[in-house]
Formats: sequence, C-alpha cells, structure tokens
Amino acid sequence: MAIESPAKVIDGKSVAKQIREEIAVEISRMKDAIGVVPGLAVILVGDRKDSATYVRNKKKACESVGINSYEMHLPDNSTEEEVLHSITRFNEDPSVHGILVQLPLPSHMNEEKILNAVGIEKDVDGFHPLNIGRLAMRGRDPLFVPCTPKGCIELLHRYGIQIKGKKAVVLGRSNIVGMPAALLLQREDATVTIVHSRTKNAEDIIKQADIIISAVGQAHMVRGSWIKPGAVIIDVGINPVEDPNSPRGYRLVGDVCYEEAIKVASAVTPVPGGVGPMTIAMLLSNTLSSAKRVYNFH
Amino acid sequence: MAIESPAKVIDGKSVAKQIREEIAVEISRMKDAIGVVPGLAVILVGDRKDSATYVRNKKKACESVGINSYEMHLPDNSTEEEVLHSITRFNEDPSVHGILVQLPLPSHMNEEKILNAVGIEKDVDGFHPLNIGRLAMRGRDPLFVPCTPKGCIELLHRYGIQIKGKKAVVLGRSNIVGMPAALLLQREDATVTIVHSRTKNAEDIIKQADIIISAVGQAHMVRGSWIKPGAVIIDVGINPVEDPNSPRGYRLVGDVCYEEAIKVASAVTPVPGGVGPMTIAMLLSNTLSSAKRVYNFH
Repeated sequence: MAIESPAKVIDGKSVAKQIREEIAVEISRMKDAIGVVPGLAVILVGDRKDSATYVRNKKKACESVGINSYEMHLPDNSTEEEVLHSITRFNEDPSVHGILVQLPLPSHMNEEKILNAVGIEKDVDGFHPLNIGRLAMRGRDPLFVPCTPKGCIELLHRYGIQIKGKKAVVLGRSNIVGMPAALLLQREDATVTIVHSRTKNAEDIIKQADIIISAVGQAHMVRGSWIKPGAVIIDVGINPVEDPNSPRGYRLVGDVCYEEAIKVASAVTPVPGGVGPMTIAMLLSNTLSSAKRVYNFH
Repeated sequence: MAIESPAKVIDGKSVAKQIREEIAVEISRMKDAIGVVPGLAVILVGDRKDSATYVRNKKKACESVGINSYEMHLPDNSTEEEVLHSITRFNEDPSVHGILVQLPLPSHMNEEKILNAVGIEKDVDGFHPLNIGRLAMRGRDPLFVPCTPKGCIELLHRYGIQIKGKKAVVLGRSNIVGMPAALLLQREDATVTIVHSRTKNAEDIIKQADIIISAVGQAHMVRGSWIKPGAVIIDVGINPVEDPNSPRGYRLVGDVCYEEAIKVASAVTPVPGGVGPMTIAMLLSNTLSSAKRVYNFH
C-alpha cells in the first residue's frame, strides 16, 4: 500500500483574492489609458432575502475592484414587460458592460424569455444559448463563460493541474454548472463523463476519474471510497447540514465528504472557501473583459 | 461462456425508406389541408464533384417525398457577399422553409459567418450555435437537431433500444456528429462519455459502453475485443479501404470492424446502409417540421 500523503487544499478564497487584485490593477490601467470604467447592472425582482444578499455581495465586490455597479430593484408583482424594459435600458446604456438578472424570478415570469433579452455582448453570466452553443462547438468561442464552471477550471489552472488527456467526471448536468463545466473540460481535451440522477453505478464511474467536479447539491454524497487515489476534487456543492455545535444550528458542507476525500485525493477544494469565492471573481473578470472588448483595449 | 447469438443488423436503409414514406404522407396531408408545400433551398459554391453529388441526391430525395427544392449554384470565385446575398434572399422567401449551405466552402470564405447568416428558423442543418446551445440546455428545445446525430438516435428509437440509464460512449467530438450526438444521448438520460484523439485508454472506456456511436472516420478502429457483449453499435464512419476485388479498387467500411462486432454486439449498423440513408431522411423531416411550424400545422 502506498503511504498516504495529505492532499493539497485548493484555497479558492486566496486565489479569488489574487484574481480580484489583478482585476483591480487592470481596471485602473484601463481608466488611466482610456478613461473608461467597467459597469455591471443587476436586476433584482421581488424581496427574496437570499437574492438580496447575493446582489449586495456582488455590488460590494464590484466596488472593491473599481467596477461601477447599477441596480434595478423591481417589486415582486412587476410585469414581464417591466423587467424586459429594464433590460432594454441597460442593453442600450454604454456605461453598462454586463447585465445580471438575479434568479430565481417570480413564478409568473418566463425566465427563458427574460434571460434571452439580455444582449449577448453583455451576457456576463454566459447563460445565453448562443454563448452555450459556442462553448459546445469546436472552433467557436463564447463571448462569456458561465462564472461558476469558469471558476472551477481557473482553480485547476492556477494550481497547475493538467486537464488534457485526463479522465474527468462531472456530477450534475445543470445549465449553470454541470453542463458548462463538462463543455469546458472537453475544450481542454479531458475525456469527460457526466454523471446524473439517472446514472447507474455512479460510484464505479466516479472511481475512474482523475478530476471530479461535483455540482449536485447533495451533502456528502461522494465518499472517500469512491475516489481514485490521487484524484483532484472540485466541489461546487454548498449544502446545509444540521449541527447543534454551530451557533446557527447548521453548517455548510460540500457534495464530497471532505474529511474522507482529503485522505485519498491529491487536491481538494474545501466548502466553504473553495469554488464559492471564485464565482464572483469570475463575474468581475467577465465584466472587465466585456468592457475591454467594447473599447478594443488589451 | 455464453453462446453467441447473432447480432441484429440495424437496417438504416429500410428505416429511412419508411420515414420517407411517412414524410410523403404528411406532405400530401399538409398540401390538401392548407395548400402549402415545404421547400428546401441548397446553396452550392464551386465545382467540387462530391459536393455536386450530395446536392443532387438531396434534390432527388426532396422530389421523392414532394418537397420543392431550390438550388443556387455559385462559381468558386464568388465573393462572401454574393453567398450572403443568396442566403438573405432565401431567408426572406416564404416558399423556402429550410436552407442548406453545402460544405466545404471555398477556402477564401468565412464558414462561420456564412452559416450564421442562415435564419435560425430555416437552419434545417441545426448547425447554428443558437440551436446547439438549446440542444445542450435542459428545459430548452432546439428548433432543429443536426441530421446525422438525429438519424442515429432515430435508429435506436425505431429498434426499441432503451437509452435512459445506459452507458453511452461517443467516439469523436465534431460539431456536426459527435458533439450533438452526445448532447442528444444526454437529453435521453444516458450517461455519456466522449472519446476523442486525446483520450487515453480509449479501448477500456469503449468496453464499458452499452451504446456506442462512432464518428471518427478511421477504418476498423474499434475491434470486436473492444465491445461489451450485448452492446448496441451505431457506426457513422464511412471510410474507403483498398479492395482489389472491388471494381472501383476500394470499398467503404465503418469505424467499427463489422465482422467482429456482429459476433459480440446485440445490434449493429452496417456500412453502407446504416446511418448514411438516415441523414437525408432527417433533412427531409427537418424541412417538413419547419414548414409545419410556420403554418402552425399539426
């Protein structure tokens, strides 16, 4: 038996901080050179507390790197037309380089219709089907890559983990994480399998993976025994589990059983502090790229 | 050892014939009911003999089911603008419900730009990134699915082969076959792995597959020993190999060694006569669907 060597902890918090510093430097360079400051517009509909928190955090993150942020807060009983009107305004506003519609929208709205209204060149979330299509196609490039999967791949890059030729398994096939993560790994020449709720013998498939990206939202689903020794694990799950010792009565854990994984894997992201901080960093990065593209600034 | 039972031959020629008959019936029903005949426009640039043959076959197939076909043949030295102008004309022509640009285009033209000019609602090839994006996304539907991969899945359906929960391996990741085939299998709840030129130990991965769709264009790459007993094989490859006994000096074979596969698999498509005839049948089917959608005819 090989002697266990402790896995490397992939420190998303620290990488995200570094990326934000790099972005801040780029933004002041751009401002000095051409007098342009990138702008991000967020549209929030309704009064969900979690959504309000996400929006606040995004605005704070924008401030911290020097991106202007704009918010349009509409009441829960707004009409689709009112939301579409806000999007159109931001689409036409040259000081806005990225538009985010905070999800979920109230149930009386057609999410697809509203997301499709965001101009493709301001779709910093990368959720527009035209961006997803380009991401899937060889020889094409999306204008934007969805933030969370982009953050996963960025962590692999920054830790010097080779993707090309590796077996990668993505758990979950959501439009916002699993599917685009699989497409990104595929673009980097991994051999990719997507495991989902209809997969039989998921454990056997996961056990073959050199790289695992998990985004299923099921606490501790992946056990240590499911992991190939030396595998790299990017855990996107953020799941609350009861914890009487915590002041809030619960704590957050990933899809992967971290305590077990750390003994088998060669590198693991913790939850929290792994992929989470990367998502906002990538949103800032997409907003900066968008502004650079408009002004052809390199 | 289990006793070998001969694999079922998946007869694409006969299925395609049946589909064309069904399409012909639908077209005359539509003509009788609302007086509309679907129309397909093909744009051919240059004088490649193979392209001319493909276009001729497509026109003949249209005729055989009652679809009107229109052809625009441009000389090899045409400008991009001339091709774009033809596309615009067909985009605006209400008697045209599908537009095909025969590939490859002359090398001085930007293929991406030209294909993107085809109106999404007439993109019967399904190659527009917006169609591919919708194909990749859960809860979205493409207006058209690319013909060859659609034909592969149709063969599985018509032979009653279950896809849900099965392990599927797609060999090749081209924009026109491998990638969309993987997305289609994924939509039908298979667990999908794409094997490509950078994949290590392809044989081991292929050996786990319940369903294999091969589109790599390499004669006899997949051997009998690579196939799990009882697997289903859809062979998209059409590769010429030298054959002194053939009057032309060569014959066409698939990516999979048919003689070996037939002893191990539960069902196999032959080459020729497997997927090939399905591609044109699906093109006719897409053109019919397009006309039905325009007139909201069910």
